[in-house]
Amino acid sequence: MNSSIASQVSKKVDLTRSSVALVREVLGYDELGREVRHWIPAERALTVYVDKRELVTLMTMGGQTELLVLGYLRNQRLLSEVSDIASVQVDWEVGAAVVVTRNGVDEIEARTAQRVVTTGCGQGTVFASLMSEIEQIHLPSDAYIKQDKVVEMVDIIRQHPSIYKKAGSVHACALFSAQAELLQFVEDVGRHNAVDAISGKMWLEGISGNDKILYTTGRLTSEMVIKAAQMGIPILLSRSGTTEMGLALAEQLGISLFSRCSGRHFILLTHSERLQK
Amino acid sequence: MNSSIASQVSKKVDLTRSSVALVREVLGYDELGREVRHWIPAERALTVYVDKRELVTLMTMGGQTELLVLGYLRNQRLLSEVSDIASVQVDWEVGAAVVVTRNGVDEIEARTAQRVVTTGCGQGTVFASLMSEIEQIHLPSDAYIKQDKVVEMVDIIRQHPSIYKKAGSVHACALFSAQAELLQFVEDVGRHNAVDAISGKMWLEGISGNDKILYTTGRLTSEMVIKAAQMGIPILLSRSGTTEMGLALAEQLGISLFSRCSGRHFILLTHSERLQK
Repeated sequence: MNSSIASQVSKKVDLTRSSVALVREVLGYDELGREVRHWIPAERALTVYVDKRELVTLMTMGGQTELLVLGYLRNQRLLSEVSDIASVQVDWEVGAAVVVTRNGVDEIEARTAQRVVTTGCGQGTVFASLMSEIEQIHLPSDAYIKQDKVVEMVDIIRQHPSIYKKAGSVHACALFSAQAELLQFVEDVGRHNAVDAISGKMWLEGISGNDKILYTTGRLTSEMVIKAAQMGIPILLSRSGTTEMGLALAEQLGISLFSRCSGRHFILLTHSERLQK
Repeated sequence: MNSSIASQVSKKVDLTRSSVALVREVLGYDELGREVRHWIPAERALTVYVDKRELVTLMTMGGQTELLVLGYLRNQRLLSEVSDIASVQVDWEVGAAVVVTRNGVDEIEARTAQRVVTTGCGQGTVFASLMSEIEQIHLPSDAYIKQDKVVEMVDIIRQHPSIYKKAGSVHACALFSAQAELLQFVEDVGRHNAVDAISGKMWLEGISGNDKILYTTGRLTSEMVIKAAQMGIPILLSRSGTTEMGLALAEQLGISLFSRCSGRHFILLTHSERLQK
């Protein structure tokens, strides 16, 4: 074995494959007093430990938990490379994710001290230091999307099997190629969890965001736009809308933001040069 | 002036009346390449300082900011009485809310150290110590709601002027009396901000939640149910749904949870004894 392969092998991240029920059927009463069966999504507390230090408790449905933990660490910029992580062990019996790093986290105390509570659904905390780092991000100027592919992506999501259709109360995120291939689909009780799980998979598998499109059912608030930029993704589609800060960040960071995507309709709010007829 | 009135007067909380634009009109392009005018809600960073100590940065539309700050402090249980607060000064020029307490916050360092990042839209952080306190909450067993009032409340919300109708991307919360009087209506880019602003007003004005109903457009995840309990509110209506943990907490805390409220329809999931025909 040559040394570069040995190095790659030794840097594989050891992940559990946790699995847990995502929905539950409950009984309720409708307005006529009739008993109705009703599905609701799970919501579980997952406490993340990094090198035996308690970092955060995330509330999640539990669908792709190891990827969520990886993506959370990436999007908070606590570690710069996925190869810095030796293992992520999720144990739903105790609601814990145990992360072991290879070399520790630099200045973990200082970097997790400041808190920003954001407008996101779900995992809405970014550490304030993130805000000063995003200006260094450069997205490719030649990324593009064809209009018929926007419509195709929206239709793929519409037809995709989902927890939402069964139980509601979840948000979905999806990663697409520019050719509208669905590369990943994640639902969670918070839209931030869903996008973090996509980020975790991209990080783990070395997938570049530069030629990808991120779709979300949720609102494109500031933090969602920041996360897309961190993932290197220059094109964002939302079934919902955006906010003033989401828009300003997309403009500044070079992200094309498609709002209100539904059927053949959308409103392109920033960087319209990326849209091809 | 007798001493009890003097004491009340001296304990008035000094609040600014900040005012800032809540929506903005922007230009976009629709799927036919036509220029469209489009409204989006504001999203602003508000850093909260308590006795000169930086506590948190909230992302908010900026509608009822002083009440949001009060409600945030209340729902995080950092102070037990609103009279512990001397003043809340919001300055949107610098994006800061300066809170001055009368006697400081006990163990502020320890009580803000643990972080729970939740599934909420928006302000989704509860300090972990909250979780251990909620079991002490007792909601009144004799609170009730009449079915025609549920329908009336849903209709009042439907007809109420809103940022949502103009710009989307916000959540609304409303406080009702059992007679379906609309007591407060708050929208924000995060549903947690909206409920916190309601909590802040109740705290400031000494309004009990025991005979009130809280309506939200958002999902009733665990933290929303916990906040309702902290506000003493035994009946929750949601246009959206709930999660497994939201349901379990409502059951445990004695909260009647009405899911999927729309038109005349709803699904009552817990404590159906509170519903009167």
